[in-house]
Amino acid sequence: MRSFSSFNWVPDFARGYVKEFRVRWALEEAGLPYEELCISQDDKVTPAYLKKQPFAQVPCYEDGEVAMFESGAILLHIAEKSDVLMPRDAQGRARTMSWVFAALNSIEPAVSAVTHIDLFYKDEEWAKLRRPSAVEFLQHRLRQLAGWLGDRDFLEDRFTAGDLMMTTVLREVRQDDVMAQFPTLRAYRARCEARPAFQKAMHDHLSLFANADAAE
Amino acid sequence: MRSFSSFNWVPDFARGYVKEFRVRWALEEAGLPYEELCISQDDKVTPAYLKKQPFAQVPCYEDGEVAMFESGAILLHIAEKSDVLMPRDAQGRARTMSWVFAALNSIEPAVSAVTHIDLFYKDEEWAKLRRPSAVEFLQHRLRQLAGWLGDRDFLEDRFTAGDLMMTTVLREVRQDDVMAQFPTLRAYRARCEARPAFQKAMHDHLSLFANADAAE
Repeated sequence: MRSFSSFNWVPDFARGYVKEFRVRWALEEAGLPYEELCISQDDKVTPAYLKKQPFAQVPCYEDGEVAMFESGAILLHIAEKSDVLMPRDAQGRARTMSWVFAALNSIEPAVSAVTHIDLFYKDEEWAKLRRPSAVEFLQHRLRQLAGWLGDRDFLEDRFTAGDLMMTTVLREVRQDDVMAQFPTLRAYRARCEARPAFQKAMHDHLSLFANADAAE
Repeated sequence: MRSFSSFNWVPDFARGYVKEFRVRWALEEAGLPYEELCISQDDKVTPAYLKKQPFAQVPCYEDGEVAMFESGAILLHIAEKSDVLMPRDAQGRARTMSWVFAALNSIEPAVSAVTHIDLFYKDEEWAKLRRPSAVEFLQHRLRQLAGWLGDRDFLEDRFTAGDLMMTTVLREVRQDDVMAQFPTLRAYRARCEARPAFQKAMHDHLSLFANADAAE
């Protein structure tokens, strides 16, 4: 059976943003059945878990064929099994891979620089001094992305795993005033979030923590 | 013919670190012939180039089959064509992909946080205040990576594209005092840098700029 790891509890600010969500959404898009391996924050640093995930993160993933980690890698592995996530031709595959990496490596670092400040370091002097230039770089990257999108519905001529990854990264832009400057990206994000597979995955993801809260 | 873009000139601090090097090294490992599309810093923002690379970066890549961008994606595309870079079995492929993403997404952000401060913001007040905690997080990640490596020669039981990517990321740790704390990683990096394909690619990469300097 196919399985991935998720946390049985995370603080409020992380709900809806844990990296396991990417894999969950992908499996819903692909229509592939799965089980969850729910772990605690203590479990993630055990020698047994570090063998599966050397950086004490979720998700790690296993199926009959492979045991692997890193949400981007798992997403591509799943995409290879589903036309919904990746076209079968070489060019369609290459474009899907390009956008998965672009989301993680050309957009996410710019997002994280601002979002980490706002979530974790808001009151620190360095964060106050640093924030304006970090926001400026984020705006630069979002402008480039919006420029690419133009009036396209998706990054290429159809939905792919690249859009899935990009949506999860754009969700991390929690600064509504920044997103408001990019109506193209806001509409794009909403378009991807409206997909039934996203809705189902988000419901299940959030249920994890609702159940944990209720059990307390 | 296979081709990738590179800059015809970069400042000293960037020589040996431009992301096109990853693709060049991969093609040398794979023994695949290629041409270079040398562009200037002005060329990268032209509409024609932004169609190939929406974020005004190098490398972009083309061959008979595909046109794509992002060094990580290009590396995986090339790896699919070469046993030297990726085993053919599902598990070997999955582990290679996991490590390419781990290098870029679990290690590189921690490296960049420190290296960007040291290269670009050294004299800014926020950078001085921020640096100690950024170094601490980098050490944490490097400790996890060294813990995984142990006495292995490579991240898995043989060299793969994951090692290639990880080496380029570890090269970005320019703080000798930090690397000195991790002899395992220093030896690993040196082992990968000693490969003939690395040496050839680095020689050619640096020659670009030596030629540009000579022409001035």
